[in-house]
Amino acid sequence: QWMMLDWKPKRPDMLIDPFGLGRIVQDGLVFRQNFSIRSYEIGADRTASIETVMNHLQETALNHVKSAGLLGDGFGSTPEMCKRNLIWVVTKMHLVVDRYPTWGDVVQVDTWVAASGKNGMRRDWLLRDCKTGDILTRASSLWVMMNKETRKLSKIPDEVRAEIGIYFVDSPPVVDEDGRKLPKLDDKTADSIRTGLTPRWSDLDVNQHVNNVKYINWILESAPLPILESHELASMTLEYRRECRRDSVVQSLSSVLSKGIGDLADSGFVECQHLLRLEGGAEVVKGRTGWRPKYANRIGSFGHLPAESN
Amino acid sequence: QWMMLDWKPKRPDMLIDPFGLGRIVQDGLVFRQNFSIRSYEIGADRTASIETVMNHLQETALNHVKSAGLLGDGFGSTPEMCKRNLIWVVTKMHLVVDRYPTWGDVVQVDTWVAASGKNGMRRDWLLRDCKTGDILTRASSLWVMMNKETRKLSKIPDEVRAEIGIYFVDSPPVVDEDGRKLPKLDDKTADSIRTGLTPRWSDLDVNQHVNNVKYINWILESAPLPILESHELASMTLEYRRECRRDSVVQSLSSVLSKGIGDLADSGFVECQHLLRLEGGAEVVKGRTGWRPKYANRIGSFGHLPAESN
Repeated sequence: QWMMLDWKPKRPDMLIDPFGLGRIVQDGLVFRQNFSIRSYEIGADRTASIETVMNHLQETALNHVKSAGLLGDGFGSTPEMCKRNLIWVVTKMHLVVDRYPTWGDVVQVDTWVAASGKNGMRRDWLLRDCKTGDILTRASSLWVMMNKETRKLSKIPDEVRAEIGIYFVDSPPVVDEDGRKLPKLDDKTADSIRTGLTPRWSDLDVNQHVNNVKYINWILESAPLPILESHELASMTLEYRRECRRDSVVQSLSSVLSKGIGDLADSGFVECQHLLRLEGGAEVVKGRTGWRPKYANRIGSFGHLPAESN
Repeated sequence: QWMMLDWKPKRPDMLIDPFGLGRIVQDGLVFRQNFSIRSYEIGADRTASIETVMNHLQETALNHVKSAGLLGDGFGSTPEMCKRNLIWVVTKMHLVVDRYPTWGDVVQVDTWVAASGKNGMRRDWLLRDCKTGDILTRASSLWVMMNKETRKLSKIPDEVRAEIGIYFVDSPPVVDEDGRKLPKLDDKTADSIRTGLTPRWSDLDVNQHVNNVKYINWILESAPLPILESHELASMTLEYRRECRRDSVVQSLSSVLSKGIGDLADSGFVECQHLLRLEGGAEVVKGRTGWRPKYANRIGSFGHLPAESN
C-alpha cells in the first residue's frame, strides 16, 4: 500500500514521509505530517504566526480525511456527505501554544478524531518539535454538519457515521475544555474597536466564504498593540457563530480581562476577550485569548499549561 | 557534505530532497527546491494564489543564500553586508504565470542570480510542474543594496562582490523585460480607488516593515471585481518605490488599460495598471497586471507567453 515500505531509512521518524504529505500511524487512528517552517510563515517576532499554526491544523485535518480515502469533494466532506449536500462546520477551536517554532524548524503534527455528543465530532491535534520531541501546541476542535444549500445544521446520518465512526478514538480531549463563560462584550465594555473590516480576495475559500483561519487576523486587529508587542499568544478559544461572506463588513472588539493595559510593563499573563460581529450586530466569532510575556517560556517562568497558570 | 549522498533512491528527482529544504544543482549555480501546494495556499479558484507563488520565490531566494553559506543575518544579507549594515531591497519584480498549480501538486522552483548593471543584482526563477515538467511561472527581479540605518542606497562593496560574484550566472533574464512606461495614474485616471488600507500585524516582517509579497494583496484590493471573478492573473510587473511601515495608511488605485470593464463578458486578455501610495501622496508601488479569461490556458487559446499575446 505505501510505496516507501521497502526503504531502509536510517532515521525512520523523519524520512518515512519524504513528500511531506503525511501518513497514518498508531493502528490507523492517528494521522501524522511534518512541516518545515518557511520564511513567509514567520512574523515580526521571527517565529511562526498563530495563522501558520492554524493553517497546519487545517492541512493535516484535510490530509487525514484524504488518506482515509474519504475525501469526497476535495475539501473535507466524505462521499456520503456529498450525496446529502453536507459539509463540516467548526463550532469551537481551543489551542494552547507552549512555544512557536522558527524558520527552518520541522514540526510534527498528529491529529485524530473522536465522537462529541450524539451529532458532533471532536478533532484534536498535538504538535511537536521534530528534533527535540517537545510539545509545541495542543489543540481541540468541535465540528457539526451543515446542509450546504439550506445552511441548516444536520444530524450525522447513519451512512456517514459508518464511514467515519471507525476512525473515532476513545480518548479525552488533548486540551481541557475552557468552560468559563465570557462576559458580555459590546461597545461599552470593549477596550478597543476596529470597524469596517472587509475580507480581502485572498481571505476567501473555495466556497467564497471567509476561511476559518482568517478570523484570527481580524481578532488581532483590535488586540491592544502594547500586548502584541510585549506578549505572545499562549492560548485561544474561539466559538464560531456565523459565516462571513465576501461582502460582509466586520467589527472587531477586544477587552483586557485580567489587567489594565497600562500595567503591561511589569505584568505577567494577560487575558483578553474578543468579538467579531457584522455591522448589523450579528455575532460571527466570540473568543478568549491568553498572552504571556515574550521569551517567558524560554526562561522557564511558565510550565506546560500557560493558560492555567494565571 | 550532504547527508543523503549514500542513498539510492529510485526516483532521484523527487527523493533527493526529502526534507523539502532544497539543494544546489547545475555546477553550483542554480538552487532547486520543491513545494507541495497546501490547502491553505489555494484561493477561491482552488488554485495557488499569486501570493503563494511569490512566497515560494522568497523562500527559495533565502534558502539559496543559506545553502551557499552566506546567510549572515538570517534574512538574505551576507556576512560582509551585515558588517556594513547593508540589506537587499527589491526594486522590480516581473512574473509571467502560465498556469497555477492546485492543492497537492508539487512545484519545482529553480533560482539563480546574475549581475545587473554595476551595482545591482538580478534574481530569476523558473517554476515547473514536478510531474509533467510544464513551465508554470517565470519570474525575474532586480535588487540593490541599502544601508539599514540611513535607508540610503549603496554601491556593492568589493568585499560583498567577492562573496556573491562567484554565483552570478551569465544568462539573459528568464522573462523579457517589460520596458513600456506606465501612464500616469491618479485620482482622475483611476477606475477604482481603495483608501485607508493599513498593514495587519501579520503583514509585517522581522524589520516591522510590510513584506514585499503583501503588497500584491493591496493591489488586488482595487482590481475590478468582474476581472477577479472572470479572469486570472497572467503577468505582473511591480516597481517598488518606498517602504511601508506598521503605521502607514495606503491607497490602492487601479485602472483598466486595454478594455472597458463592461466588455468583460466576451473579452480576452485584459491589462490593468496599479498604484499604491501613502495618504500623503508618496508612491509605494507602481505596477501593471495582465489577466486572461479563467480556464483559457487549459483550452489552449493562449501559448506560453500570455503577456505578449495581447
